[in-house]
Amino acid sequence: MSSTRDIDALIEMMAKLPGLGPRSARRAVLHLIRKRGILLSPLADMMQTVAATARECLNCGNIGTADLCDICASEKRANGEICVVEDVADLWAMERSGVFKGRYHVLGGTLSALDAVGPHELRIPRLIDRVATENITEVILALNATIDGQTTAHYIADELGARVKKTSLAQGVPIGGELDYLDDGTITAALRARKAL
Amino acid sequence: MSSTRDIDALIEMMAKLPGLGPRSARRAVLHLIRKRGILLSPLADMMQTVAATARECLNCGNIGTADLCDICASEKRANGEICVVEDVADLWAMERSGVFKGRYHVLGGTLSALDAVGPHELRIPRLIDRVATENITEVILALNATIDGQTTAHYIADELGARVKKTSLAQGVPIGGELDYLDDGTITAALRARKAL
Ligand SMILES: [Zn+2]
Ligand SMILES: [Zn+2]
Repeated sequence: MSSTRDIDALIEMMAKLPGLGPRSARRAVLHLIRKRGILLSPLADMMQTVAATARECLNCGNIGTADLCDICASEKRANGEICVVEDVADLWAMERSGVFKGRYHVLGGTLSALDAVGPHELRIPRLIDRVATENITEVILALNATIDGQTTAHYIADELGARVKKTSLAQGVPIGGELDYLDDGTITAALRARKAL
Repeated sequence: MSSTRDIDALIEMMAKLPGLGPRSARRAVLHLIRKRGILLSPLADMMQTVAATARECLNCGNIGTADLCDICASEKRANGEICVVEDVADLWAMERSGVFKGRYHVLGGTLSALDAVGPHELRIPRLIDRVATENITEVILALNATIDGQTTAHYIADELGARVKKTSLAQGVPIGGELDYLDDGTITAALRARKAL
């Protein structure tokens, strides 16, 4: 490589980000260097700011800049409903849809025998605690439709017992989805949950 | 979005990088925040360093950290041959192959009537000057096999006249390339340049 060691090091760091590889990291770094005044410096500054301020919400596991995240701290969100998600990215996806007005709980992953992830590696004890103390009437288990996601949902439902209503997201054909592109499991689920017209 | 404004701003900046979109930017930023101590801070520091030191070589247009880039400054590189590329990314690709031991000249793009890019928007005058003053015996026009790339190569070849040998990269089937996946132009070029076995 003809570039200096720092530029090479920067490319290597960028290449390790999810969604980037060596080629896109090189392109991104070249782009940033060309516009170093208006892009690279401000990006570095913003990263430094976020590195110094971002942290996990002590209550729900969402990312914010204080002990309590914006959602936990908000007085505008409805109490009584907790939407349980695997990851902050899933919380963001729910928020983009704008349909849920309650509170969240971010597990930080799923149970996995293979990876030795048990309930205490996730925020499951804290969830049980919240349900017991926050006057929760419904727990929406919005976990991914994967085996680990569904195993985790069933484990949590069992742990919560009968004291609270437990629901999960409907499964079926996504809006605009073409049957030909869907996996068998989705089609099976959609057929089983078919509705009368 | 539930994340704070700084995190949103960081995602927005990352999403504008080539090769990234909103979704991969969100994933990258979450990953960086989770490992903010060992990833985000060092990445921000390295970006700041590169922003402060990276610049274009005054001679060839390559990116380095001094007035002359590593290649122009090196005493190990052969004089007499200049490889002309469109972009620093192309120079890096040539260097990864390790096959060229001479000097480079980075044009900074291609001529384009549509985008009003003329010779003076590129480093073409500087190239003509270098060929006249650096005892150059061969100019390898390693431009992309696009219409603009080839137009630019022909323009430069004309400008250089007969005083120097001008060559271009061979066109043909890439190593490991399957005919079925190649465009017609490549197959045509490969057939015309066919060799006796
Ligand atoms: Zn929270
Ligand atoms: Zn140079």
